[in-house]
Amino acid sequence: MSKKFSTEPLRGMEEYYPDDLRELNWIIENIRDVAEQYSFEEFESPQLEPIEIFAAKSSEELVNEQSFIVEKKEGEKLILIPELTPSLARMIAKKSQELKKPIRWFSIPTCFRYERPQRGRKRQFKQINFDILGEESLFADLEIFSIIVDIFKQFGANPSQFQICYNNRRFVDALCEIVLTVPKEKLSLIYKILDKSDKMEVDEFEKFVIDSFQDESIVQGIYKIKDAENLNDLLSKFETIPEEFFETEGYKELNEFIKLLDDANISEYCSFSPNIVRGLDYYTGIVYEVFDMGTENRRSIFGGGRYDDLLSLFSDEQITGTGFGMGTLMLSLFLKTYNLIPEEIRKKDYTDTIYIASINNKVSKYALKLAKLVRDEEFPCIIDYRFKNLGNQLSKANELGVLISLIIGPKEMEQNEVTIKNMKNEKQKSIKIDSLIEEIYNIIEEFAV
Amino acid sequence: MSKKFSTEPLRGMEEYYPDDLRELNWIIENIRDVAEQYSFEEFESPQLEPIEIFAAKSSEELVNEQSFIVEKKEGEKLILIPELTPSLARMIAKKSQELKKPIRWFSIPTCFRYERPQRGRKRQFKQINFDILGEESLFADLEIFSIIVDIFKQFGANPSQFQICYNNRRFVDALCEIVLTVPKEKLSLIYKILDKSDKMEVDEFEKFVIDSFQDESIVQGIYKIKDAENLNDLLSKFETIPEEFFETEGYKELNEFIKLLDDANISEYCSFSPNIVRGLDYYTGIVYEVFDMGTENRRSIFGGGRYDDLLSLFSDEQITGTGFGMGTLMLSLFLKTYNLIPEEIRKKDYTDTIYIASINNKVSKYALKLAKLVRDEEFPCIIDYRFKNLGNQLSKANELGVLISLIIGPKEMEQNEVTIKNMKNEKQKSIKIDSLIEEIYNIIEEFAV
Repeated sequence: MSKKFSTEPLRGMEEYYPDDLRELNWIIENIRDVAEQYSFEEFESPQLEPIEIFAAKSSEELVNEQSFIVEKKEGEKLILIPELTPSLARMIAKKSQELKKPIRWFSIPTCFRYERPQRGRKRQFKQINFDILGEESLFADLEIFSIIVDIFKQFGANPSQFQICYNNRRFVDALCEIVLTVPKEKLSLIYKILDKSDKMEVDEFEKFVIDSFQDESIVQGIYKIKDAENLNDLLSKFETIPEEFFETEGYKELNEFIKLLDDANISEYCSFSPNIVRGLDYYTGIVYEVFDMGTENRRSIFGGGRYDDLLSLFSDEQITGTGFGMGTLMLSLFLKTYNLIPEEIRKKDYTDTIYIASINNKVSKYALKLAKLVRDEEFPCIIDYRFKNLGNQLSKANELGVLISLIIGPKEMEQNEVTIKNMKNEKQKSIKIDSLIEEIYNIIEEFAV
Repeated sequence: MSKKFSTEPLRGMEEYYPDDLRELNWIIENIRDVAEQYSFEEFESPQLEPIEIFAAKSSEELVNEQSFIVEKKEGEKLILIPELTPSLARMIAKKSQELKKPIRWFSIPTCFRYERPQRGRKRQFKQINFDILGEESLFADLEIFSIIVDIFKQFGANPSQFQICYNNRRFVDALCEIVLTVPKEKLSLIYKILDKSDKMEVDEFEKFVIDSFQDESIVQGIYKIKDAENLNDLLSKFETIPEEFFETEGYKELNEFIKLLDDANISEYCSFSPNIVRGLDYYTGIVYEVFDMGTENRRSIFGGGRYDDLLSLFSDEQITGTGFGMGTLMLSLFLKTYNLIPEEIRKKDYTDTIYIASINNKVSKYALKLAKLVRDEEFPCIIDYRFKNLGNQLSKANELGVLISLIIGPKEMEQNEVTIKNMKNEKQKSIKIDSLIEEIYNIIEEFAV
C-alpha cells in the first residue's frame, strides 16, 4: 500500500462539484441575461500575460506580493492575471481602429491572487467584468449603474439589501483643492486616506491623518468628508464655500449624475458616499462600491469606476472607459445571505430523463435502439447497464428522481413494444414504440400540472 | 511619448474577441446539448494543482518540460494543469462514497502546455472531457463512442470525414504474448513502438523496431500489426495462431465490442486499428483516436480510452473509468475544414435589438424610460447617447444591422408616443407607448417570414 496524496485542492483554489457548478452557472446565466439586454458582447483574454503590463497599471503590492508568477525562460516573467483591466486595454488597443464605439464588452475571467483565503476571497476566482469604452458622457456611467441594479433585481434583491455607494473623483479634487485648500501634489494622499477610512481602526486612522496633514483645517475637512451622509450634509459641514467651487466640473458633474440617477428611476439603489474613492490609481471620474447593507457592518461586495486613458500603455490613442469587476464568490455570499438562490438549482433535474431498465441482457440491442429514439427527440436518457434485477434498476431510477422509466424484456422487443412507467404515481402500461414519444410528452405534461 | 508595450498576447495564448467567442461558445453549446442527452453532469477543477499528482500519473516529459510551473514557496511547486485526468481522480476520490455510480461527468477546463505552438496546438487551450466512472462493462465504452459520434453528427459531419480508430490493449497484450511470443516485460516497449509507428520517418522507425527486438518473427509481427486494415486482415497475416489466443479476454472483448458497435448502429463511424495504442501509460482496455479522414494524410483530432485504477494515487478504492479529452482548437479546425461552422455564428445578431435615437437631449429621460420598458420585455436595447444629429444615429443603427429603431423628440415625449421605424423596409409610424411591445413583435414576425 503506497503513500496516498491528499484529495484536497490547493489552498484557496476553487473547485466545483456538479451541484456547486449548477449554482454558479445559474448565477452566471442570470448575468448573461442582463448583458444581453444591454447588448454587451462577451470576450475572453488569456490567463497568462506579461508581468510588465500589470506592473505598470495595477498596484505594486498586487503584482509583487499577491500574484502567481511563472518564469519559463531566464528573465521572462508571466503573471496569472489578478484582474482584467490591463488585458482588456491590450485587446482594445490591438483592434481599436476596427471596433465600433461605444464598445460594450463583458467577460468572466478566472483570476488569481496569492493572498490569505477568507470568506468570499479565494486564490483562484471568477470575476464578472462589464465595461463601456469610448463613451465620455455620464450616460455610460449611468448605464453601468443600471446594469448593476438590474443584476441585483434579477436575483430579487431590494434596496435595503444593496446600495451602490458612489462618489466622483473630480468632485473630491475640487472639494479638496478649493474648500480644504489641499496642495495639488497631496491629492493622492487624500485618496489613500479616504480609501483606508473604513479599513483601519479609529486610533490608527487618526494617527495616519495627523501624520499626513499637520494643517488642522485639512484634518477636520477629511473627517467631514468621511462622515458626511449625503451631498447636502457634506456641504453644510463647511462654514464657507468659495463660489468658484460651484463652478467646477467636479461639482457640476456630480449634480448632473444625481439627476440622471433620478431620471433613470434608480435613485433608491444609490447613495452618494464622499469617502468612497477606490484604491487603484487609474480611476478619474465616477467611482463606486456596492455594499451589502443588511448585515450589522455593511460589507463591500465589489466596486468600479471611470478610468481615462485606458490604452496609454499600448498606444497614444485616448479612450475612456467605465466599468466594474465583481467576484462571483462575493456575489454568491450576498445572494445566500438573503436566500436568493433557489435550493432546487443545485440539484440535477431528472424529470425529463428517460430511464431504461431491462429484464435481461438479451434485449440490450433493443435498449440501445430506444435510447437513440428518445435522445433524437432531445430527451436525456440513461440505460441501466446491469441488464438483470429489474427491481434494483427501478430503485436506482427512483433514487435519482426520474419520472419516466421504460421497462423492456424479450416480449416487448419481439412485439416492438415498451412498458412505460410513471415513477411518481406508479402507473404503467404497454405501448407500441410508435407512440412512445407522444406518451412521454403526456406523462411530463400531466406531471407539470 | 513613452515607450509602448506590444498589443500581442503571449506566444501560444488563446484570446477571443467577441466574434471568436461566439464561434467557440456555439461549438461548446452543441457539445453541452449532447452531454445533456446522455445525462452527464458538468464539474470544474482548479487550474493550479500540486505538481506531484501529475508527475505520478502523466508522462515525465509532460510535467518537466511541457508544463508551466509556479513556485510560490520554497520547494512547493504548483502546475498549471496540462490535462484533466489527475484532477478528476482527486475530486472523485474525495467524495467517492457519496457519488452515485456510474458517474457521468464532463468538464471543459483550460489547460496549459509549454510546447511549440502550431496549427491546432496552443500553449493555453480548452479541452472537452467526458468520462464514465465506476462502470466496468463495455457498454460504458460504447456509450462514450456514441457520444463522440453524436457530437460529430450534431455538427453535420459524416463517416467519410471522421472515424473513431480503436483498439483494445488487452487484445494487443494477448496477440503479442501468445502469437508474437513477446516476453511480458517487453510489452510496454511494443506500445511505445506502435504509438510511434505513424509519427516517425520510415527509416527511423525501422531502426527503432530492430534495435528493440532482435527476433525476426517479432519484428515481422510488429509490421503485421502496424499495417493491418481490419481484424480479419490482421489475423490472416499469421500462418498459425494458437487456439488459446481465441480464448483470451482480449480477443473476446474486442469481438464483443465490435458486435456492440453494430448493435448501436454506429459501426460506419468506427474502424478497428491495431496500431492505435495511445501514448499514456494508464490505459488498460479500449483505446482510440478520432481521425480527420478527409485530408490527404489522416490527422488525429483527439483520443481516449479505458483506464483502471483511476484513484490509486489517492485511495485504495478501485474505480474504473473510460473517457476522452478533445481540444476545442483541433475540433474547430476539423469543423472549418468541412465548412461545418455557419458563417453567421460569428456575427452578433441585432435583429431583436431596439435602437433608441433621440432628436435632442431634452428627451433623454424619456429615452431611459423606453429602454427600461423594452428591456423588461427581454429585448436588448441600445440608447444612442449623442442626442443630436438623428441621421447619424440612424446610420449607426443600420451599420450594426438593427431591425427596429425608436425615434423620439419633444413631441413624442409630450404625447407618450414613439416613432417606430423598420430599418429594413424604411417604414415608420407613430404609436402610443402602450402598443410599443405589440408593434415590436409585429415587425420581428413580419421580418422572420
